[in-house]
Amino acid sequence: MVAPNKATNFEFVIDRLDDVELERPTLIEGLPGVGNVGKLAVEHLIDVLDMKPYARLYSRHLPPQVSVSEDGVVDLARHDLYYMKGHKGGSDLLILTGDYQGLTPEGQYILSLRTLELARDLSVPMIFTLGGFGLVRMVETPSVLGAVTHKDMIPDFKDLGVVFRSGEPGSGIIGASGLLLGMGKYLGIPGICLMGETSGYFADPRSAGEILRVLAGYFDLDIDLTKLEERAKQVDEITNKLKKDIEASEQEERDDLRYFG
Amino acid sequence: MVAPNKATNFEFVIDRLDDVELERPTLIEGLPGVGNVGKLAVEHLIDVLDMKPYARLYSRHLPPQVSVSEDGVVDLARHDLYYMKGHKGGSDLLILTGDYQGLTPEGQYILSLRTLELARDLSVPMIFTLGGFGLVRMVETPSVLGAVTHKDMIPDFKDLGVVFRSGEPGSGIIGASGLLLGMGKYLGIPGICLMGETSGYFADPRSAGEILRVLAGYFDLDIDLTKLEERAKQVDEITNKLKKDIEASEQEERDDLRYFG
Amino acid sequence: MVAPNKATNFEFVIDRLDDVELERPTLIEGLPGVGNVGKLAVEHLIDVLDMKPYARLYSRHLPPQVSVSEDGVVDLARHDLYYMKGHKGGSDLLILTGDYQGLTPEGQYILSLRTLELARDLSVPMIFTLGGFGLVRMVETPSVLGAVTHKDMIPDFKDLGVVFRSGEPGSGIIGASGLLLGMGKYLGIPGICLMGETSGYFADPRSAGEILRVLAGYFDLDIDLTKLEERAKQVDEITNKLKKDIEASEQEERDDLRYFG
Amino acid sequence: MVAPNKATNFEFVIDRLDDVELERPTLIEGLPGVGNVGKLAVEHLIDVLDMKPYARLYSRHLPPQVSVSEDGVVDLARHDLYYMKGHKGGSDLLILTGDYQGLTPEGQYILSLRTLELARDLSVPMIFTLGGFGLVRMVETPSVLGAVTHKDMIPDFKDLGVVFRSGEPGSGIIGASGLLLGMGKYLGIPGICLMGETSGYFADPRSAGEILRVLAGYFDLDIDLTKLEERAKQVDEITNKLKKDIEASEQEERDDLRYFG
Repeated sequence: MVAPNKATNFEFVIDRLDDVELERPTLIEGLPGVGNVGKLAVEHLIDVLDMKPYARLYSRHLPPQVSVSEDGVVDLARHDLYYMKGHKGGSDLLILTGDYQGLTPEGQYILSLRTLELARDLSVPMIFTLGGFGLVRMVETPSVLGAVTHKDMIPDFKDLGVVFRSGEPGSGIIGASGLLLGMGKYLGIPGICLMGETSGYFADPRSAGEILRVLAGYFDLDIDLTKLEERAKQVDEITNKLKKDIEASEQEERDDLRYFG
Repeated sequence: MVAPNKATNFEFVIDRLDDVELERPTLIEGLPGVGNVGKLAVEHLIDVLDMKPYARLYSRHLPPQVSVSEDGVVDLARHDLYYMKGHKGGSDLLILTGDYQGLTPEGQYILSLRTLELARDLSVPMIFTLGGFGLVRMVETPSVLGAVTHKDMIPDFKDLGVVFRSGEPGSGIIGASGLLLGMGKYLGIPGICLMGETSGYFADPRSAGEILRVLAGYFDLDIDLTKLEERAKQVDEITNKLKKDIEASEQEERDDLRYFG
Repeated sequence: MVAPNKATNFEFVIDRLDDVELERPTLIEGLPGVGNVGKLAVEHLIDVLDMKPYARLYSRHLPPQVSVSEDGVVDLARHDLYYMKGHKGGSDLLILTGDYQGLTPEGQYILSLRTLELARDLSVPMIFTLGGFGLVRMVETPSVLGAVTHKDMIPDFKDLGVVFRSGEPGSGIIGASGLLLGMGKYLGIPGICLMGETSGYFADPRSAGEILRVLAGYFDLDIDLTKLEERAKQVDEITNKLKKDIEASEQEERDDLRYFG
Repeated sequence: MVAPNKATNFEFVIDRLDDVELERPTLIEGLPGVGNVGKLAVEHLIDVLDMKPYARLYSRHLPPQVSVSEDGVVDLARHDLYYMKGHKGGSDLLILTGDYQGLTPEGQYILSLRTLELARDLSVPMIFTLGGFGLVRMVETPSVLGAVTHKDMIPDFKDLGVVFRSGEPGSGIIGASGLLLGMGKYLGIPGICLMGETSGYFADPRSAGEILRVLAGYFDLDIDLTKLEERAKQVDEITNKLKKDIEASEQEERDDLRYFG
């Protein structure tokens, strides 16, 4: 049981699950968003890197509900932190994920601020926020766009294939992916947002895979993308079938119209 | 009159009505929800067990209004606590009910958190939250579903006839019934949500009765369900009449259509 | 100028305009509501009793705007307190009025709570809240309904012609008129809500006048109702004309239909 | 990097960019609003007077997002302060601008209150808030309306051509332009709102220019309005073209109808 006073207002409750000591872990955020790209990417990371639960984060700024697990046990709406000790001298990693963004704009600020304070306590040297960049059209080979807290970070990421397009995304970066960078910059923690191009029409594992290629390069990690690629192919098959159906029905319409020509 | 400083922000005001000492009372929540099942169940308990008012809970997270009683007296929107000293060595009971859930998601968190703090002060060993599980179809013999804070609680409740279906309800448990368990689990108070199956189309006394059967078994209490069963029969009569009317009018339509056959 | 620290959060700022010492003043609230009955009543009181400004109340729970007076000067959205020293041994009076209710339910709680704390500081012995009771039909001779904080207050007000109908208004009393009584009761200040029956279709000076007759009786005050009665007659003329126009046009329709008979 | 404790709640974070000492600077606010008149005016001032960045203001009451600059760097949603040391013995100036008003009414109060506290710390002697006065019709030669915190300020501004129309704007002044004056008045800082008449149909540089003429007179500044006038002419050309197109199409319609005459 946790000390009662920690939960005074349930503004931001950290429920540690593992007392591992992390060494300047890099924080990687993947919460729900456009094409669910960020969340797919970090879920894949947690899976293939066999990451361990570090803590659960509860907050009155998340939805007022519990989920019920397969074995009938309730779980309060939460954000999750997973970790991995760096191997081969690499960086420790800390993943932030979950099923929800904060419910209100103010709640989103508080959640990201408290997460940053935790990051500062852990001496996080850098933050990656992952998301999708919605193009509202089909994308064959998605690029990964970047936006950074400090201009001098750009060259390294260009070398890893990240694209920087002047002023894009024009509508800014909304929610945790934006706030962790924007407030992190103010608090002295540098960061980058990696945005996988996506149609935005469906969950996009291919776009998530492209982001992971960048992370693999940056952290010199071997990330097996097989499962993501399989899911991407499944999505392709479904969309191709849909496309053919639509084309067939359009052809039919044109054929029908010919009689009136 | 209560000390003024207790009401500084009217976040959560406890107005004690009885200075009885309760001994590790079990908390049972029944606030408005699907089919009003939880509220019907606890109201029946209060009635047949002749429970006494323990305290009124006021909060700025409840609606900004008063009700007017039959004798012309105003009552601020509130939650109510009723109690019963255990007899035959049984557990003391504390019922939470009322006409409203918290008005905002954040308000729901605060109300449930403060209620849990009160529960902790009273050494509440366990929490029951009662509600309906909406099936959006008529239910002849409603089962009682369960969801618990700790897996090892399940066998005892299975023995009492409670059903545990993997991952149900899939949409989670929303409002006080969920939060009291989810936050209670974090604060170290175990709990179970009992959900009576219900169509969700109307207040459902039969479903409430099924929940009370489980509670009667658990607490080894003799709960007279006659009144609830009478109300259930009244509901049956109304719905049967509605069903017949609908069938008759459908038959008529079919008869009409035969002329055009 | 007021001490800066008083405005730390602009939750509730009291800007005193007169340093008169009030002796256990009775608080009378008339804020906007159904038929604007409460506000019309207190505005008339302020006018005919020549009451003086006592304080202005500012709050971040009121609309974020200023009004512009006829001489081009801005005034922050506010509530106003007016006062009258009792004459002939009568009670000091303190009127609460304004153009707005609190913007949010929570804001309404805070505004009423802070007003009550001010009332307690001033040893207010009793609170009157004034409002309209909407009947959604025309009312020739409006009654004044009452709802009280303590049952034993009823006989005195019945003697003054106030009507107590069991459980009415069934939808409760919403906003400041309800909260000042409901929270006041908890804080130990008795109160009554006087509700003038009104159609609710327009501002209703006749209903306001009926409330003032009760207050005149209670405080043994001579309240000249001439102006209110004149305004009531103007409203009558307009509604009578409207009624005739509607009847005439309905008659015309019936005449037209006769040709098809 | 800034001291962590300054950001405890991100309610209002002042990120100083320049440690210049200002001497009783006059505060001039131009945030988004009707016809964007206030923002256009202050942006022009910053440009032609070559004003320097003084501080950035962050707040959880602004939108939860970052923008991305042309060089790929993120910037948290913010308000900006620019300054100019007075020349020729003139007043120091401090400009408040930004892309957003506070997101909620309460947030608007807090943002303006904290800005005023900063103003008080800087011994700001007077506040100008700039905005548009929407007429919902085309305006050839926009007047500048005024509303002040203290009546005795009016004659000086009348001499500068500012118009004071009794009780206008009738709907009050909403948002920061109103709150900075209304709360400023309470905190002892006098102020004036200058409202350029505008159709409200589009961003209106002509109206902004008229406001700047008043400021030029008041501060005895030489403000080059060339760029604003050019933009005003561009707007004129577009609206004239639109007007002619509409007239032409209306004439056509009339011509068409003649055939049926």
